[in-house]
Amino acid sequence: MRAVTFNNKLSYVSNYAKPSLETGWAVVRVLKAGICNTDLELIKGYMGFHGVLGHEFVGIVEECSKPEWLGKRVSGEINFACNNCEWCSQKLGRHCPNRTTLGIFKADGCMADYCKIPIDCLIEIPDDIPDNKAVFIEPLSAACEILEQLKSCVSGTEKVVVLGDGKLGILCSWVLTTAFNDVTLVGHHNDKLKLASWNKLKTTTDINSVSSPDIVVEATGTSSGLNTAIDICKPRGKIILKSTVADQKPVNMTKIVVDEISVIGSRCGQFKDGLAVMKNQPNIPLKRLITATYPAEKTLEAFKKSAQKGVLKIIIDFT
Amino acid sequence: MRAVTFNNKLSYVSNYAKPSLETGWAVVRVLKAGICNTDLELIKGYMGFHGVLGHEFVGIVEECSKPEWLGKRVSGEINFACNNCEWCSQKLGRHCPNRTTLGIFKADGCMADYCKIPIDCLIEIPDDIPDNKAVFIEPLSAACEILEQLKSCVSGTEKVVVLGDGKLGILCSWVLTTAFNDVTLVGHHNDKLKLASWNKLKTTTDINSVSSPDIVVEATGTSSGLNTAIDICKPRGKIILKSTVADQKPVNMTKIVVDEISVIGSRCGQFKDGLAVMKNQPNIPLKRLITATYPAEKTLEAFKKSAQKGVLKIIIDFT
Repeated sequence: MRAVTFNNKLSYVSNYAKPSLETGWAVVRVLKAGICNTDLELIKGYMGFHGVLGHEFVGIVEECSKPEWLGKRVSGEINFACNNCEWCSQKLGRHCPNRTTLGIFKADGCMADYCKIPIDCLIEIPDDIPDNKAVFIEPLSAACEILEQLKSCVSGTEKVVVLGDGKLGILCSWVLTTAFNDVTLVGHHNDKLKLASWNKLKTTTDINSVSSPDIVVEATGTSSGLNTAIDICKPRGKIILKSTVADQKPVNMTKIVVDEISVIGSRCGQFKDGLAVMKNQPNIPLKRLITATYPAEKTLEAFKKSAQKGVLKIIIDFT
Repeated sequence: MRAVTFNNKLSYVSNYAKPSLETGWAVVRVLKAGICNTDLELIKGYMGFHGVLGHEFVGIVEECSKPEWLGKRVSGEINFACNNCEWCSQKLGRHCPNRTTLGIFKADGCMADYCKIPIDCLIEIPDDIPDNKAVFIEPLSAACEILEQLKSCVSGTEKVVVLGDGKLGILCSWVLTTAFNDVTLVGHHNDKLKLASWNKLKTTTDINSVSSPDIVVEATGTSSGLNTAIDICKPRGKIILKSTVADQKPVNMTKIVVDEISVIGSRCGQFKDGLAVMKNQPNIPLKRLITATYPAEKTLEAFKKSAQKGVLKIIIDFT
C-alpha cells in the first residue's frame, strides 16, 4: 500500500505492507489525513519516531473483528491504551503509561492507504459531517480538552485570551467562544486573524490591548509564549499550556508564585467532545482552515508546504 | 526607636522615627520578629525595597483608633490592601494591585520597636500560644495557603511530596500531614529531616524513592526545583510552586503539556488559617525550627547567621 514514512528521512513509499487484522482491532481504509505541527516536529526527531506518520484521519472500516463496524465511516482516538491499569480504569487511557500513540509513539500512523486502530478507539462519523470537517476531529478534541479541564472552576463570564493564530490557536478560540462570552485571539498575521473571525471571537495583533485576562491559552508553538502568558495573566488566573516545543526558555517563576497563577498543561481530548462541537455548532468553519489538499503521491510537497509561513491545515487525500 | 533598615545596605539604627498613629491603623510594640528567606533576598536587592525590614512578628497594640485593640497581643497580615477594588471585595486583599506589603514593598516592616499595621490586618493571638510559636503565624499561614488552593479538588488520599527541607518546606510538610495521609519530605540534610519528623510525615534524602506523587510542593528555594518536581510528578498531578527565586532556569514545558500537569503558584495565606493550625494542632513543634534568638542590637549578626547553611529560623528579640 501507499504510505508516508519517517525513518530518519521523510519518504513516500508505494509498497508498505498493509496492516493485518488482530482481534480487538479494525483495519481502516484512509480517506483523508491531516498534517499537524506534531508531524513537523516528528520529522525533526521529536519522540525518536520511526514508521508511518499521521494521527488525524477519516476513513472506512474495511476489516474488523466486530462486524457491526464494517463499512462505517470513522475516525480514531490516537492513544492506544492497555485497558488494564489505574489510568485506564479512570477512562484516562490517554495517560496510560503503557500506551502507544498513532503515528507518534510505537504505532504506525494514518498517512497510508490503511491503518490499524483498536476498536475501543473508533468513533463513527455521522453522515452529515463531510470528510473535510471530520478530519479535524483530533485537533478539535484537543481544543475541547481545555473546557474539560476548566469545567469545574469557570462560569463563562471570565475574560479569555488565546495566544497564537496557528491552527491550534484558532481551533481553541472557536471552541472557547462556545463556552465563554469574552474570547480574544492574539496573533501576528492579519490574514489568519480575519479567517479566524467566527461566533463572538475578537481578534487583535496588539498584545497590550488585552491586559489581565482570567484565562490565557498559550498556543503559539514557541518557547517564549509562556512568559508572554505569565506577563498578561491576571493574579490567580489560569494559563492553559498547549505548545509542545523542543527548546526551553527560562520562565518567570516569581510572577507565577506572587500572583498565584496556575499553569495547566493540556494535550489530547476525547473525540466525543470534538464530535459534539461539530454536531452542536454545525456552522463552525473548520474547512476555512484547509490551505490545500494534496494527493498521497505528493506528500513530500505537502509537508514542505505545511512548514511554510502563513499555511494552516494541509490535507492528504488517499482516495 | 531601634530599627533594622535596608537602604542599599543593611543597618541597625537606634534613632529611627516611631510611626505615628493614623485613623484605621494601630501602632504595635514589637516583641519578637523572625528573619525570613525573603528578607535575605531583599537585602540582595529584590523588590528594590528601602526602609525597615521584617514581616514576621508578634507584639502588643500600644496605640489604636479602635480602643478595643489596646493592649492586645497580636500579629498582622502583611498585605495592606486598598479595600476599594475588585480584589478587596472578594476578600483577596493579598492580591490587591494597590497593596503595600509590610517590610517588603512600600511599607516599613516589623524589625523595630514599633510598627504600624492597618486595624483590618490585626489578628489577636490567644494567651495559650506563646510568642515563640505566634511569631510563625506568617510562614505557617503561607503553608496553609496550599490547602486553601487545593481544597476543592483533593480527597486526602493523594500521595504528596514536599521538595526542600528548609523552614518553608518543613512548615508545608507539617500542615499537609494534617490533611493528607501520605506526605514525604525530600531534603538533602539528615539533621533537618530528623528535626522535621512529626505527625505522619515521612522523610527521605532519596528523590528516586518517591516516584509519581499526585501532588508535589516545590519549596527548595532554587530555580532547579521546578524541573525536579516536573520529573517526578504523576500525569495530571499538581505542582505547588512556593519558591520565589531571582534567577530563572529553562523549564521542561513539554512534560507539563504531555502529562497535563498543573503548576500552581502559591504565596501568602490567611492568618486565620495559620492560627487555626496552632489551635487545632497544639503539639505542632514550631519552636524546633528556631535555631537561635538574638537581641535587637545584634541583628546584623543575626542576619549573617540566618544566611548560613543548616540554619532554620532566627528570631530577633525586641523586648
